[in-house]
Amino acid sequence: MIHALFDDFLTDDRVAALFDAPALVQAMLSMEQALAQAQSEHALVPGPSATAIGQACDVARYDLDDLLQAGRRAGSLAIPLVKMLTAEVAKTDAQAARHVHKGSTSQDVLDTAMAIQSRKAVDLIDARVGELVQLLRDLAHTHAATPVLARTLMQPATVTSFGFKVAQWCLALQRARMALRRQGEQALSVQLGGAVGTLAAMGEHGPAVRQRMAELLGLRDPGGQWHTSRDEWIRLGTEIGVLCGSLGKVATDLALMCQGEIGELAEPTGAGRGGSSAMPHKRNPVSSLVALAAARRAPGQVATLLGCMGQAHERGLGDWQAELAEWPHLLMGAHGALNALVEAFSGLQVDTARMRRNIDALQGLVFAEAATRVLAAVLGQAQAHHLMEQLSKQAVAEGSHLLDTTLAHIAADDALRGQIDPATVKQAFDPEEAAHHPAALTQALLASLPQA
Amino acid sequence: MIHALFDDFLTDDRVAALFDAPALVQAMLSMEQALAQAQSEHALVPGPSATAIGQACDVARYDLDDLLQAGRRAGSLAIPLVKMLTAEVAKTDAQAARHVHKGSTSQDVLDTAMAIQSRKAVDLIDARVGELVQLLRDLAHTHAATPVLARTLMQPATVTSFGFKVAQWCLALQRARMALRRQGEQALSVQLGGAVGTLAAMGEHGPAVRQRMAELLGLRDPGGQWHTSRDEWIRLGTEIGVLCGSLGKVATDLALMCQGEIGELAEPTGAGRGGSSAMPHKRNPVSSLVALAAARRAPGQVATLLGCMGQAHERGLGDWQAELAEWPHLLMGAHGALNALVEAFSGLQVDTARMRRNIDALQGLVFAEAATRVLAAVLGQAQAHHLMEQLSKQAVAEGSHLLDTTLAHIAADDALRGQIDPATVKQAFDPEEAAHHPAALTQALLASLPQA
Amino acid sequence: MIHALFDDFLTDDRVAALFDAPALVQAMLSMEQALAQAQSEHALVPGPSATAIGQACDVARYDLDDLLQAGRRAGSLAIPLVKMLTAEVAKTDAQAARHVHKGSTSQDVLDTAMAIQSRKAVDLIDARVGELVQLLRDLAHTHAATPVLARTLMQPATVTSFGFKVAQWCLALQRARMALRRQGEQALSVQLGGAVGTLAAMGEHGPAVRQRMAELLGLRDPGGQWHTSRDEWIRLGTEIGVLCGSLGKVATDLALMCQGEIGELAEPTGAGRGGSSAMPHKRNPVSSLVALAAARRAPGQVATLLGCMGQAHERGLGDWQAELAEWPHLLMGAHGALNALVEAFSGLQVDTARMRRNIDALQGLVFAEAATRVLAAVLGQAQAHHLMEQLSKQAVAEGSHLLDTTLAHIAADDALRGQIDPATVKQAFDPEEAAHHPAALTQALLASLPQA
Amino acid sequence: MIHALFDDFLTDDRVAALFDAPALVQAMLSMEQALAQAQSEHALVPGPSATAIGQACDVARYDLDDLLQAGRRAGSLAIPLVKMLTAEVAKTDAQAARHVHKGSTSQDVLDTAMAIQSRKAVDLIDARVGELVQLLRDLAHTHAATPVLARTLMQPATVTSFGFKVAQWCLALQRARMALRRQGEQALSVQLGGAVGTLAAMGEHGPAVRQRMAELLGLRDPGGQWHTSRDEWIRLGTEIGVLCGSLGKVATDLALMCQGEIGELAEPTGAGRGGSSAMPHKRNPVSSLVALAAARRAPGQVATLLGCMGQAHERGLGDWQAELAEWPHLLMGAHGALNALVEAFSGLQVDTARMRRNIDALQGLVFAEAATRVLAAVLGQAQAHHLMEQLSKQAVAEGSHLLDTTLAHIAADDALRGQIDPATVKQAFDPEEAAHHPAALTQALLASLPQA
Repeated sequence: MIHALFDDFLTDDRVAALFDAPALVQAMLSMEQALAQAQSEHALVPGPSATAIGQACDVARYDLDDLLQAGRRAGSLAIPLVKMLTAEVAKTDAQAARHVHKGSTSQDVLDTAMAIQSRKAVDLIDARVGELVQLLRDLAHTHAATPVLARTLMQPATVTSFGFKVAQWCLALQRARMALRRQGEQALSVQLGGAVGTLAAMGEHGPAVRQRMAELLGLRDPGGQWHTSRDEWIRLGTEIGVLCGSLGKVATDLALMCQGEIGELAEPTGAGRGGSSAMPHKRNPVSSLVALAAARRAPGQVATLLGCMGQAHERGLGDWQAELAEWPHLLMGAHGALNALVEAFSGLQVDTARMRRNIDALQGLVFAEAATRVLAAVLGQAQAHHLMEQLSKQAVAEGSHLLDTTLAHIAADDALRGQIDPATVKQAFDPEEAAHHPAALTQALLASLPQA
Repeated sequence: MIHALFDDFLTDDRVAALFDAPALVQAMLSMEQALAQAQSEHALVPGPSATAIGQACDVARYDLDDLLQAGRRAGSLAIPLVKMLTAEVAKTDAQAARHVHKGSTSQDVLDTAMAIQSRKAVDLIDARVGELVQLLRDLAHTHAATPVLARTLMQPATVTSFGFKVAQWCLALQRARMALRRQGEQALSVQLGGAVGTLAAMGEHGPAVRQRMAELLGLRDPGGQWHTSRDEWIRLGTEIGVLCGSLGKVATDLALMCQGEIGELAEPTGAGRGGSSAMPHKRNPVSSLVALAAARRAPGQVATLLGCMGQAHERGLGDWQAELAEWPHLLMGAHGALNALVEAFSGLQVDTARMRRNIDALQGLVFAEAATRVLAAVLGQAQAHHLMEQLSKQAVAEGSHLLDTTLAHIAADDALRGQIDPATVKQAFDPEEAAHHPAALTQALLASLPQA
Repeated sequence: MIHALFDDFLTDDRVAALFDAPALVQAMLSMEQALAQAQSEHALVPGPSATAIGQACDVARYDLDDLLQAGRRAGSLAIPLVKMLTAEVAKTDAQAARHVHKGSTSQDVLDTAMAIQSRKAVDLIDARVGELVQLLRDLAHTHAATPVLARTLMQPATVTSFGFKVAQWCLALQRARMALRRQGEQALSVQLGGAVGTLAAMGEHGPAVRQRMAELLGLRDPGGQWHTSRDEWIRLGTEIGVLCGSLGKVATDLALMCQGEIGELAEPTGAGRGGSSAMPHKRNPVSSLVALAAARRAPGQVATLLGCMGQAHERGLGDWQAELAEWPHLLMGAHGALNALVEAFSGLQVDTARMRRNIDALQGLVFAEAATRVLAAVLGQAQAHHLMEQLSKQAVAEGSHLLDTTLAHIAADDALRGQIDPATVKQAFDPEEAAHHPAALTQALLASLPQA
Repeated sequence: MIHALFDDFLTDDRVAALFDAPALVQAMLSMEQALAQAQSEHALVPGPSATAIGQACDVARYDLDDLLQAGRRAGSLAIPLVKMLTAEVAKTDAQAARHVHKGSTSQDVLDTAMAIQSRKAVDLIDARVGELVQLLRDLAHTHAATPVLARTLMQPATVTSFGFKVAQWCLALQRARMALRRQGEQALSVQLGGAVGTLAAMGEHGPAVRQRMAELLGLRDPGGQWHTSRDEWIRLGTEIGVLCGSLGKVATDLALMCQGEIGELAEPTGAGRGGSSAMPHKRNPVSSLVALAAARRAPGQVATLLGCMGQAHERGLGDWQAELAEWPHLLMGAHGALNALVEAFSGLQVDTARMRRNIDALQGLVFAEAATRVLAAVLGQAQAHHLMEQLSKQAVAEGSHLLDTTLAHIAADDALRGQIDPATVKQAFDPEEAAHHPAALTQALLASLPQA
């Protein structure tokens, strides 16, 4: 059994446990149980046989190490499991043993088991996204009008509101949640096709058995099989990838704003949280760390899934198995990232004073665009832009505040003096004023938040 | 200017031309034109100025080499273009020049231009998918009942119908088309946020200007800006990736069935098509080649797009630009693959006799599962499976046909003789019979094809 | 703890166990032990303290679940481990406890532990590559002159020898082995830099301590630290990726040649090996399956490693942790693929008669190039090529053997009759003859095999 | 022809021009010329014929649009080029036309042409890395003892020297240069195998012809062909990927240090460089932008190359063509990133006063580790660490300087007072002192710089 220590470190057990041997083998057995039951309802299997099969579908009865060893030899985990299950049923009901796995194939068992467990994983992820969206919504409301530097190309640009920033994060995650739900509905389907996808062994009852299995297992009936037409399934993977990307965006901003020299945000403190073994004063953004790690890994994982789509003929050789192996890691990473950010935003420290100081430290330069707008009314956009570029350079060179430099220039310029009201210029340099507009946008964005 | 010869080779000019300098710069200018017009309708720009700006928005007036050189210095193509446009407008209307690019920012121009051109590219792709779906639908109808080997794990498995195979390809591509349309609607949005996304410079009119621009440009109004919340845009990229994956699946099967030793399919011939410089007898599957190449490249391209999602703050440094650069290649590859497969399926040669010979050559082994089902009625699934495994080995060892071996065994076995009707066994070994069931499934699948 | 069932299925425990919690934590403790010992030899730590620390460096003394929980809070596994180790040492020697982890930092512990375990993994991989190279070398010798179809663009081309094919595989793997050794030497280094890479806390002794630690741990002394300069380490990862690529090449050819319709090769049989749950006659190429799965996953894994290289400043946030998590999977996959192919080639079934029949089935078409050469002596390359293209089409249309068609044409053509000796033409169509030249090349290639 | 505007924007014409149609077709013709010449030296082609062929090997004689159209039909650019060349030679020398492309195949032409152009690209890259290494070496010397904050996990950690940081960058790039040279020697080989790699058409002269061609073209003689054993070639690609990773590391640090709130570095200014269309005061780090973009794209590009390694049999279908198409983008990106960073470091502005102010702003917290070492001499590592953690929290809470807090604690603590010399504590808080040790390491590292 594989325990990868650093995978553990970046997620928790809830999603991971869905894909370990006991859970996944139980899901394989649940598929066999549902198959037998559905077949019994369509008179393909006697009722008592279905019951006997169902009773044997308990993972606790099987030796998983033996299963894994046999699976490696067979090139499939389902083949030896079906043998074990048949033998187990036969112990008590030889008649029933004849009906085990009837008309099905290995891939039906494995894909359905993966869908069963992925359904649970997607639900866990959905719930976590929901918590995070709620936290971000509240945070955006609270700070809708809190001035903060907007930064473009990693440079201070102008002033926005912190709530407006957070609202963008929030909307992207809510979109991810909606997309994940929609695609989860599409993709989390039962797999039932028999040997080569035609359900040949069940005659006319095949589609009805599949539909009933879907009901029993809480999955979608895909209306066919998807052995090697894996687009809906892979689309679900790409949605997880996009979710990780949006989480990475949040974590990027968070980590940048937590930098000591910026200090506008801090992840929550607590015993043993984010300390350093060598530097006692450090408070490390460990939630950002986990979310960034997931965002770094997801693209490669999604690429692998996409790269496995060309599965030959009626069952892939190698690419199907690679896809199955890669899949859980993507879900684990997303869940780990969500856990981390929920924790971070549950106790996030927002230093609004520092946000203000960071604005003030730029000596009005970030209001150059706002001032340009004031001047443009007289000079036109291009000339105003050019003038403010000059005045900005002058202010930097002189170490003066751009407001003072601008007012001085206006006062000294015959063309501008009298045309431009100094009060209007001052207003253009007011952070509270600058946050006014984004505050309104924030409320509008939050009001538009799609309902999950 | 970059001409990458092997990119050229794998696509055609239609999509590529959408992203070359003249086309993309024209789209940037179209954005500026629409901005001015929308602003004039909301009294932010005088009507005559908007008209003057619109007249200058013609790519033929600008030196693209100069633009590119200046763009590299500036770190943005939009900055020098706005300067050039302003100067061009000023030649005839100094007043209008003041209103160029009003309240907007570089990223608004570039993202909107990319959306304009991507809208066209997605439409071209949509049309091509439609053609391919139609070809595949017809092919599936024609061969709904044509027996062909199903192959799992690259080995002959049992018999299915060729139409059933084709119907799977067809459905996956139709799903891709529907998904691409839906996501195209979501993602192909105007970008308008101004310096840091707040549309501060347009006051209360910002949202209305954005909405009007969207109408003018045939794009969606996203209800906000998406400077660094690029999830909907990237989702569109992942849909292209999934499309390429499904095209790769078709091409994989096609290439495998075109192998000389299998020979069930052949790509169309024609002057200069698929020949070899060294081997005169060769007919190479050049459409498969192009589609497989796209399927190989798409996962890395999608990974790059996903890896660029963590764009810092209000405008990304490096990741935004990497995303823009990677984007067209994904669309070009998909379009090239579609072109290639439309060509292949327009003249596909289907050798049904060879399909039958390939079945026959396996001496009945591929009917072992069907025979298992017959025997299972008496022996149960597990014992029947075991018996057929033994008989298959025996047939292989003896070089006999499995039907003969099976009938001989039944005749010699007291438990089976009389219980099993030889005619039922013979039926289990009949290819036409085996294709009967998939033929019905094929018709059902085609009937379920979602309408585009 | 994470057990990913499908990861298990694709590898074995030997490499996996190197990266599970007990093994990796022991390696972390071994690092601390070596640090204390090296420091004691340079008088930075008293000898008895180093001894006491060393005695506590036994993983059996620690609760790994506690460690993992604390590690998640701390954002580092090393921080709580150092605390636990210090407490453990303090139980018996309070003086020694003061010297635990002296002058070091979390990353030193984790990177060194990863290097220790990767050293073992690379050695396991090296040994397996060695076995596989030996098997391939023998196979190439045996079949140096066995005619087999060469296939280009998935189409039969001309005739080569099977040994020549195998020799290519063999050389690529031997190159991989040499490259892996060289890069292993470079990359498997001790990490020791202290808090920010300067070894500030050890004064002038830092480099000597690092060198001594390297000796004690069987690693290289890198001459500095590599906290965020991870190029040598990542280069090792790319070498594993290239190895997987070359293994995937072998598996691709193997799987293609194992196809039922080609049947030139078969993976070994054996109880429970490669059977099918639904199709008793199937013999699935399960070794190819495992190797192809590794080759599918390695590119995404390598991309993740490369994408993590931009680690900020003196310790990365998220990218370092993502890299550590991804790393073992790459090594596990490579080892799993090697195991699988060693098993396949240990019992590979080579059907030389089938190879010959596949050549013969093409009715001489694959000798068109050889015939072109004969004709080119008279007609020139271009005209000869053109003629053979015509004759090939004619032979296909008539269902005749190209040799007969060609001889008939020569006999009927005044320009060729008498100029071309029919015996020379016949020789050009002889498979044994065609394999003669590649046989010589095979021997030359094997003789050139670099020594490991 | 494809002009991808954003690709253009991120690189320059020097490398791009190596892979456009005229250059690459000329390289293909150069291959044919060298082949004819080498064959004439081994009496396979008459001398005058080789001369005639050589004269026709001038790209200016051919219509590239026609070639490309024909290439798409043929599935290979080499096939129609060989026809065109043959026709061109035949215009003046029908005898010579018979010897065009003798014994060779399409892939020989294309792979060799790619190697010829890649040789030039790698040389351009090598030269640029050399310039950058020199700039970094000088910068490291200059600032060997300049104190700057070291930052771990995106948080201020302790003090290092700026030169020490730069020296790490420098060494990684020099290692990249050495590795690229070594692998360039290995990988940039002539390709000559004929139809299926056996050089069958040249009899015993094949290897000698290949060797002579290698000399003529300035490439390596690989001792065989590498049609589908592409490991050495792909290894060269991974080296470019690692180079991009190391460039991305430099750009990450550079961009972070250029942030307005940190302001320790600034990219050079200049007319039109790094301005903003909306914000006149902005100075954007446009070199970092370009390098980061390359680092974002390289992993996906390398993944594609690795994913294409499983090329079937004797010539790949789709994966070979995908690899050829992807290849130039990787080289272009690396060269663009190098250009950008050479420009940045040619005029880099280093604000040592700001570096010092950033240290001072942290009120001594970053010296906590140094202070821990002082206290550890009395208290042991663990207890000293714990105490400094407490004192750091106290200093933060009180807004006091940690030095003062620490001295006050020592003065008030009976166990410490007298045991710890306040002067030693003060020294632990001195930035110049902290940079002393890294300064020495910097000099040692630079002295160890491997010679290129």
